[in-house]
Amino acid sequence: MNLRTKILGLEAGGKFIVVLNREDAEDLSVSSLERVRVRGHDNEVIAIVNIASMLIVKGTVGIYEEVKNSLGLNEGDEVDVEIAPLPSSVYFIRNKLNRRKLTYNEINEIIQDVIKGKLSEIEIASFVTALHVFGLDLDEATSLSMAMVKTGNILKINKPVIVDKHSIGGVPGDKTTLLVVPIVAAAGLTIPKSSSRAITSAAGTADRVEVLMPVNLELKEMQRVVEKTNGCMVWGGTLNLAPADDIFIRVENPLSIDPLLLPSIMSKKKAVGANLMVLDIPTGRGTKVKTIGEADLLAKDFMELGRRLDIKVQCAVTYGEQPIGHTIGPALEAREALAVLTGEVKAPDLIDKATNIAGILLEMSGKKNGKETAMEILRSGKAERKMREIIEAQGGNPNIKTKDIPVGDQTYTVRSAKEGYILWINNASLAEAARLAGAPKDKGAGIYLHKKIGDRVKKGDPLLTIHAERDLKLQRALDGLEKADVLGIGERMDMLIHEVRELPVSKTTFMIER
Amino acid sequence: MNLRTKILGLEAGGKFIVVLNREDAEDLSVSSLERVRVRGHDNEVIAIVNIASMLIVKGTVGIYEEVKNSLGLNEGDEVDVEIAPLPSSVYFIRNKLNRRKLTYNEINEIIQDVIKGKLSEIEIASFVTALHVFGLDLDEATSLSMAMVKTGNILKINKPVIVDKHSIGGVPGDKTTLLVVPIVAAAGLTIPKSSSRAITSAAGTADRVEVLMPVNLELKEMQRVVEKTNGCMVWGGTLNLAPADDIFIRVENPLSIDPLLLPSIMSKKKAVGANLMVLDIPTGRGTKVKTIGEADLLAKDFMELGRRLDIKVQCAVTYGEQPIGHTIGPALEAREALAVLTGEVKAPDLIDKATNIAGILLEMSGKKNGKETAMEILRSGKAERKMREIIEAQGGNPNIKTKDIPVGDQTYTVRSAKEGYILWINNASLAEAARLAGAPKDKGAGIYLHKKIGDRVKKGDPLLTIHAERDLKLQRALDGLEKADVLGIGERMDMLIHEVRELPVSKTTFMIER
Repeated sequence: MNLRTKILGLEAGGKFIVVLNREDAEDLSVSSLERVRVRGHDNEVIAIVNIASMLIVKGTVGIYEEVKNSLGLNEGDEVDVEIAPLPSSVYFIRNKLNRRKLTYNEINEIIQDVIKGKLSEIEIASFVTALHVFGLDLDEATSLSMAMVKTGNILKINKPVIVDKHSIGGVPGDKTTLLVVPIVAAAGLTIPKSSSRAITSAAGTADRVEVLMPVNLELKEMQRVVEKTNGCMVWGGTLNLAPADDIFIRVENPLSIDPLLLPSIMSKKKAVGANLMVLDIPTGRGTKVKTIGEADLLAKDFMELGRRLDIKVQCAVTYGEQPIGHTIGPALEAREALAVLTGEVKAPDLIDKATNIAGILLEMSGKKNGKETAMEILRSGKAERKMREIIEAQGGNPNIKTKDIPVGDQTYTVRSAKEGYILWINNASLAEAARLAGAPKDKGAGIYLHKKIGDRVKKGDPLLTIHAERDLKLQRALDGLEKADVLGIGERMDMLIHEVRELPVSKTTFMIER
Repeated sequence: MNLRTKILGLEAGGKFIVVLNREDAEDLSVSSLERVRVRGHDNEVIAIVNIASMLIVKGTVGIYEEVKNSLGLNEGDEVDVEIAPLPSSVYFIRNKLNRRKLTYNEINEIIQDVIKGKLSEIEIASFVTALHVFGLDLDEATSLSMAMVKTGNILKINKPVIVDKHSIGGVPGDKTTLLVVPIVAAAGLTIPKSSSRAITSAAGTADRVEVLMPVNLELKEMQRVVEKTNGCMVWGGTLNLAPADDIFIRVENPLSIDPLLLPSIMSKKKAVGANLMVLDIPTGRGTKVKTIGEADLLAKDFMELGRRLDIKVQCAVTYGEQPIGHTIGPALEAREALAVLTGEVKAPDLIDKATNIAGILLEMSGKKNGKETAMEILRSGKAERKMREIIEAQGGNPNIKTKDIPVGDQTYTVRSAKEGYILWINNASLAEAARLAGAPKDKGAGIYLHKKIGDRVKKGDPLLTIHAERDLKLQRALDGLEKADVLGIGERMDMLIHEVRELPVSKTTFMIER
């Protein structure tokens, strides 16, 4: 059927979508969300159909940007539109809904079609839900990892040993990577670290690092930095290491499920050529992994998946019941990390975590006394020098000082209304407050935590200071804090957590961060 | 945040959607598919966010038709857009993903939010997938049925006994309802029958009936017809009996799953006030329900759900290995049904099925010898007269004759290439061919089946005749038939069904028809 294009001027998030008039759709026997083959200018794409009854008139077809660009269409061009058969990947997904294990070839075809924009959000959401409900077995996780590597870019660094670290996330204020990379690189190991930006948290590692240096590097620039300094800290988004993952996460996020956790992480490590890796699993009530037993089971899965992908994995199960260090939010965190590197501040938990993880990597690559070596590299200033080298190589100012880093000047300090001990800290509420204050977009927004679990407080003592760049957002964060239980203060024998008087709405959720 | 509207001129299928510029979205801390509250002209809606980087400039917001109409917006109006909290229904869906049973109140809130357009396609797809994977228990099925009734229209007919029938579908050519309704109504029972149009089949009952009379009746007109004639045959789409179901089906169809089968059917029966009902469960390889054992289990669930909803249900497990009668496609089927009512043709399987089902309804309402009575009503011409009464009451021509019904004049007859018996008929391929010929949109398109299972054929005997309204579609149907195995012809001891030489792509699917 020949139709005239109407350019809609809208993007579909990478998917190929066209809008048909209801009558034309009936004539083609296609329903909404079925597929058509659109042919124009000697080229063709498979597009998903939306249907409009009023604004796309009979004889025309509404064209989203992706289709426009792929076929080089202009307003009023003639295109040939015909019904297209269902891609096989849809049948594979339907098989998964009926509990069938998927083969490598089937998974590979699903991943290819996800990237090509051939699958609708409904199909991807259903696939991801089925993976969540049934659980991924390790064969499928391996296939998914391999298929995701195959469909993305590969970093080639000519070194026999390449190390990497990853945290499955969930703890606010976790700036460990900003210490581990310079320590490990200063020790002579190669660590091509890519990180994500925040998705539901107040800061991702890429957001933190960006306060100190550019992170939007192309793959070639990343390679140059690593070859020069042994390390880097870049944003994964521009590298296209496992592009399918970015599409899955758009669906996983609103559902607050993360069934692709293992292949998502491991595919990116494989893509940068890592052969030794340490995985940080923060554990505690406020994180993704609630108990040490669960953490050990997850560790086992990662280690086995690593073995199948030729990556030796060790895991660090870490304490995650409260933020790491004292700061949450990109600039506050970058400043704290830099201050630890320069020796200006001591954040004992942050230093302990970073040197433990760096130490594991050092020992995995054959060095002795890993943690002590890491501590010595940090204390001696070698880590700071390496950090400045990396900053310079990535295009930042190598002489940056902590006081050069601006933080939000709209502040409010919350003080304790009573005396007692800090019994618990609600990670999710703190992260939410930092987001309301403007993080991660407003780099200077965030929270400074004056007290941590176990600390004694008197009435009137400062508990936390909110930083925002704009008064309006400061107010929003304060309103948010008022509604939430952020810190528990009481005597050590206080037993009641909260009362349930009517049917509760359980709003359990978790931070997705990769 | 105050933004100027840009009217997009696109519909979102009932959902409230707005498109934000990426920077504005970051400032509001909303991601794609999260929700905002849009306030304008003293009114507000909760809308789902899409994000555009180019075509919605900073400071403007793209407005879909649903939001435009709900708030009465014009191009360039100022609206206030703020982040909105997640609806509780999203948390209930997340709980379901983690295998929690949902309470009535939780289900009710999900259904309400589905209808109000507050849930994204991803959330609905995930919910429907979880229901498919975990299965609905009867408590949840009851809650869903009640919530769907509560959110839709109700038919009020002042009669102590109201009967209804339903087929779970899957057999092509099933025009049974066109006989059952007039038989039962002629016997003095009240049967306010609403039916669906085809979704993935070649004709739904509403499509068939529409050949004989208007079916797009409003609820009040339906009531008037039933009060006048004891029966009606209308399309459910205009009645709004369980509007949530129409939204679910848009998601279920591309996934080829139907977890809401029970509440979908039973809520509509409850909404028309039925208290006696017979459910037809066609059984066989080409239908939804493959074996008699499965059919019995499904029957049990329907009967128990009926009990909880105060509807007495009996089931008829019927033979579904081939089409009912000889015709597929709206006009061909309407003509066959009318010809059976007038006595012009005998279609023994169709008559047997219709009189059995009508007979069950007669016996359920206290009459003796149901099947014989039904047969007598059909044979005596009473059913035909009742049919013409209903046709007249619904606004059709009561004197319509079979020869007045036009069928597609582009025809091609497929003849047997060999001698033998018809061993099997592939329902799905036949329906697909009828669709390719233009059914259900082209009412005259379809297939006439000359032979049925068990019939002896000689080389050159006509097997089936395709009817189309346009030559192009006839050709398309023929191309489709060539690729498919439609009829199996052979000797009765032929054992091989097909060979599997390489990894097959299992394209199992089923007809969704309600």
